[in-house]
Amino acid sequence: MTITVFGYPTSPYSRMVYYVLKELGLSYEISQPNNDEEIKTPEYLATKHPFGKIPYLDDDGFHIYETRAIARYLVNKYQGIKNSTVLIPPDVQKAALVEQFISVEISYYTQSLYKMLIPLTHIEIDLKLVNEGREELEKTLDVYEKLLEGKDYLTGEFSLADLLHVPLTSIAFSAGEGDLWNKRPNVSRWWKNITERESWKIISTENKSTQ
Amino acid sequence: MTITVFGYPTSPYSRMVYYVLKELGLSYEISQPNNDEEIKTPEYLATKHPFGKIPYLDDDGFHIYETRAIARYLVNKYQGIKNSTVLIPPDVQKAALVEQFISVEISYYTQSLYKMLIPLTHIEIDLKLVNEGREELEKTLDVYEKLLEGKDYLTGEFSLADLLHVPLTSIAFSAGEGDLWNKRPNVSRWWKNITERESWKIISTENKSTQ
Ligand SMILES: N[C@@H](CCC(=O)N[C@@H](CS)C(=O)NCC(=O)O)C(=O)O
Ligand SMILES: N[C@@H](CCC(=O)N[C@@H](CS)C(=O)NCC(=O)O)C(=O)O
Repeated sequence: MTITVFGYPTSPYSRMVYYVLKELGLSYEISQPNNDEEIKTPEYLATKHPFGKIPYLDDDGFHIYETRAIARYLVNKYQGIKNSTVLIPPDVQKAALVEQFISVEISYYTQSLYKMLIPLTHIEIDLKLVNEGREELEKTLDVYEKLLEGKDYLTGEFSLADLLHVPLTSIAFSAGEGDLWNKRPNVSRWWKNITERESWKIISTENKSTQ
Repeated sequence: MTITVFGYPTSPYSRMVYYVLKELGLSYEISQPNNDEEIKTPEYLATKHPFGKIPYLDDDGFHIYETRAIARYLVNKYQGIKNSTVLIPPDVQKAALVEQFISVEISYYTQSLYKMLIPLTHIEIDLKLVNEGREELEKTLDVYEKLLEGKDYLTGEFSLADLLHVPLTSIAFSAGEGDLWNKRPNVSRWWKNITERESWKIISTENKSTQ
């Protein structure tokens, strides 16, 4: 059995996939594009990712792209096999709440965060967009602060929903924006909980760069 | 057993939930806000949806928000009980491909479509944004045209991934933008397949308005 993740090792989306793999106790190989153009070639679009993105996963010939779909696939296939870590609970209602917070992450958290971090990947900086991103994120984090009252994790227990927040947020910390999280006690505690896990420590030390 | 969907009956997100419910053969009650302010009250934010959105679902006291999470919950809990419709196949790889296309829908389709449809919900129209949305959508639909070659549905068989595209796209058709879909033979065939289902016909006739 060989699992290969194709993507830049420091890309936040690749790291979401590595984090899931490590939590499930799976080993994997990292493969990466030779340059930025490679993921836009007709060959790549036709056979790897039709929207020209990374990462994709190859699990013994089974090919799948889109980070959160890859994450769910790995959980459905491998959870409980190598260790007892639970990322999506078998209970239907508990699983529904994990999915609820994955949708929250996509809809209200990552989109704003992405906007705020645009200067890291673009040469022309649109400050209006950056500030808009920061403002939206402040509002979202205010809601998180309430949601996390008396809780260590979004659903109460560590899950895929928490995990998916880590890689992109960690870039925000490297970019000097950590105060947004630190100044909110519940959010700050949550951030500590979801980053002090052994598997994340390994991933973040293996790849030191911020992008 | 009572399932209640809270949301405007003509809202595309509410309709995604109705469509899932009808496909699974479930009956449900519709409940709706008295006005737009209701979903921003402290009470609503504290107990219904912390980000001030519709829809949410109440299933005999179990409360859940975020459309796609609601959809997956309903499938996990009720698929196979009232009829034999399959929205997420039990096979792990097949399910992974459904999830892949749900992520495609969120990442490349609905975001652009939403931008293009802004004039329907906003008084100040930002034409630059609308055109940007349309251009992105054209590119996405070009990819769909390839992905749908020789296929009736995104994964080959009708699934939750197809279904989630319907309500918002149907608004684009009402807004006179149907040509974007019609001019691409595979996309056009797909659109026909996913809208000619009995359950969608019922939902779209029950609520005639476009927004
Ligand atoms: N919806 C995709 C997003 C992945 C994504 O945005 N990847 C970035 C790298 S972190 C990328 O491929 N960027 C290259 C590009 O857009 O040209 C997913 O969930 O996997
Ligand atoms: N991420 C949410 C989005 C739902 C959404 O955007 N709902 C719209 C109505 S179609 C809404 O509540 N708009 C009111 C607002 O944003 O104030 C979901 O997936 O359910």
